[in-house]
Amino acid sequence: MPVLSLRGQQLPASPIRKLAPLAQEAEAKGIKILSLNIGQPDLPSPPEALKALHSIDRDVLEYSASDGIASLKSKLSEYYNRFEINVSANDIIVTSGGSEAVLLAFLSCLNPGDEVIIPEPAYANYISFAMTAGAVIRPVLAKIENGFALPPVEEFEKLITPRTKAILICNPNNPTGYVYTKEELLKLNEIVKRNDLFLFSDEVYREFCYTDEPYFSALQLPGAEENVVLIDSVSKRYNECGIRIGCIVTRNEKLRENVMKFCQARLSPPLVGQIVAEASIDTSKEYLEHTYNEYVDRRNFLVNGLNDIPGVFSPMPMGAFYTVVKLPVEDAEEFCKWCLKEYSYKGKTIFMAPAAGFYSTPNAGRNEVRVAYVLKKEDLADALEVLRHALAAYHASGHR
Amino acid sequence: MPVLSLRGQQLPASPIRKLAPLAQEAEAKGIKILSLNIGQPDLPSPPEALKALHSIDRDVLEYSASDGIASLKSKLSEYYNRFEINVSANDIIVTSGGSEAVLLAFLSCLNPGDEVIIPEPAYANYISFAMTAGAVIRPVLAKIENGFALPPVEEFEKLITPRTKAILICNPNNPTGYVYTKEELLKLNEIVKRNDLFLFSDEVYREFCYTDEPYFSALQLPGAEENVVLIDSVSKRYNECGIRIGCIVTRNEKLRENVMKFCQARLSPPLVGQIVAEASIDTSKEYLEHTYNEYVDRRNFLVNGLNDIPGVFSPMPMGAFYTVVKLPVEDAEEFCKWCLKEYSYKGKTIFMAPAAGFYSTPNAGRNEVRVAYVLKKEDLADALEVLRHALAAYHASGHR
Repeated sequence: MPVLSLRGQQLPASPIRKLAPLAQEAEAKGIKILSLNIGQPDLPSPPEALKALHSIDRDVLEYSASDGIASLKSKLSEYYNRFEINVSANDIIVTSGGSEAVLLAFLSCLNPGDEVIIPEPAYANYISFAMTAGAVIRPVLAKIENGFALPPVEEFEKLITPRTKAILICNPNNPTGYVYTKEELLKLNEIVKRNDLFLFSDEVYREFCYTDEPYFSALQLPGAEENVVLIDSVSKRYNECGIRIGCIVTRNEKLRENVMKFCQARLSPPLVGQIVAEASIDTSKEYLEHTYNEYVDRRNFLVNGLNDIPGVFSPMPMGAFYTVVKLPVEDAEEFCKWCLKEYSYKGKTIFMAPAAGFYSTPNAGRNEVRVAYVLKKEDLADALEVLRHALAAYHASGHR
Repeated sequence: MPVLSLRGQQLPASPIRKLAPLAQEAEAKGIKILSLNIGQPDLPSPPEALKALHSIDRDVLEYSASDGIASLKSKLSEYYNRFEINVSANDIIVTSGGSEAVLLAFLSCLNPGDEVIIPEPAYANYISFAMTAGAVIRPVLAKIENGFALPPVEEFEKLITPRTKAILICNPNNPTGYVYTKEELLKLNEIVKRNDLFLFSDEVYREFCYTDEPYFSALQLPGAEENVVLIDSVSKRYNECGIRIGCIVTRNEKLRENVMKFCQARLSPPLVGQIVAEASIDTSKEYLEHTYNEYVDRRNFLVNGLNDIPGVFSPMPMGAFYTVVKLPVEDAEEFCKWCLKEYSYKGKTIFMAPAAGFYSTPNAGRNEVRVAYVLKKEDLADALEVLRHALAAYHASGHR
């Protein structure tokens, strides 16, 4: 048998999706799965998006330009301008979801062996994309006890070596919900400029900030035109994760030229998704406010409920729609598997993402899970009830 | 300014798409562009596909499974069974177009420095995907004088080193239109098995074979379950290049596990495209026959017309919808640029892909272009007329 690539063998399975086969088996046994593992909102996609989908009037579902349909790029630049992020359509390259944006940014900026500093816990798939590019993640550990605040900027600076090429932040943060202050970003900007680094800023949860501070984007940092690479996606904003439309935004022209070569190789982003995304940018204020208020409500309900369960702790997230939760178990992954394989309460069980996969630091987060609060409150209530009873049953059956 | 990746800097721009800005400029001047550069058929997508698109009745455009929607995978296995290719839904992983299928197959099988033997000229983007995976292409040169026949299998064997990990074929071939005989494939199979190599077989043009021989797929090779990796796409078959749906099919379970980890990292293939692709597999025989007959007709018309122009030569392709053409110029890329920048005939000009980008052998194909015969016959007639006059004008103005 031919030998598989080392990279493929070493790549971690996604902590968000790897237990899906167990969930399918439980479902096949008639158990209802409460999916807290994944950021798949149950809210409808905007009416503007669905209308655009139903009104597509084309005979040929053809390739688009490799950097995306021109009218979508213009619309996206309009969108950024609303947030006082001054970019033009030329600065934008449309990708197949935020996922491809991360991958192409890494491939275009990082050589094998180059290092990227990332605050942890971090969105698990960054690790896979870094490994794909051959790059090495140098983690800065954020602690649950401090509400996952960004560690002091000096911690970043300590990690800089001749191989350091970039800092990556996700703001608001997936999985912790932390939102960076303007001051923190300005400090990072100094480090980035002083050391000639790229600053990858994943801002797909931009519109889900629950603090009173106005949102500050990395693209608003002064003098960092060559450094800042924005990763974005319409998936979460408009509850249309399946259309797979994201983008890379950067004022660094040479970088865009590099990215475009990778884009040409894969021909074009999905046509139908681009049409839907363009219409979504005109989503009504009412829709966006409703979504926002739902998440605030669901967050408060879930996080307060979690903290009411003995031994369970979660900080109150400031943004996005996830939280990292400390559980009174030794190995949260074993507990997550057990919930799917061996447990149900009133015909239901919970599917959570073990948080260890969101750390590259060995042994970090072993007793933590990431949960999303994208389900209806009644489902979240059921999930809390299942979790409370599951923990009791887990301990009662001799597990730690 | 931070330094870009070497890989990004070295990646070639796509010979199919890199001259697009010149075409846009010509278009802006009011010149009609006859696009022979790209395999974007002007035939409509199947009515079944468009109907499925218009009938989507979902409130949430959500993620699908990372390996694709289960019903699409079943339908695809049904499709292969029609061709006596015995695979099950489990053997199939849905990707964002054939492009992602190639990339993920390379990433999962090849280590940096590993070698892939590829007959040349070859689909240009294989080079980009190989570079992305850090792999090295070892070309076996096919010659236009021999109608780009597969070089004797001994030529492949001569190139095998301890770093050789795979052989890649595209059958029917893009760009040459060559179709491999069953005997050639059986010989390749022996080499592949004897040397424990992967055999990547890109068969996206399976249904466009214009010979009388029955099509023989690499998945029909005996005893090569662990070796064969099929690359496929619905793009060309159903004239729906923009929906970005392809797949990897392999009976090698360990390989599928590797591929799935990359798939989980990018979450899921496009949802709407998958729905459209599934419906397309039930496209009527009439539609497929009409498409087939159109390509035969367009091929005959274009290739005969090309060979009527003094100094121009193209073999008659046996499959797909491209041909590689030798032009009476020293540097075909310069000529292609000149056609877009400086020439028009009766308000029209031609956009062709310089063939040098389809070779990794230095200086090969410098006087060749790849052209697609996917336009209507009246457009092909215009293209032939423009080409004839352009060549005369090019030489008259002192170019060689």
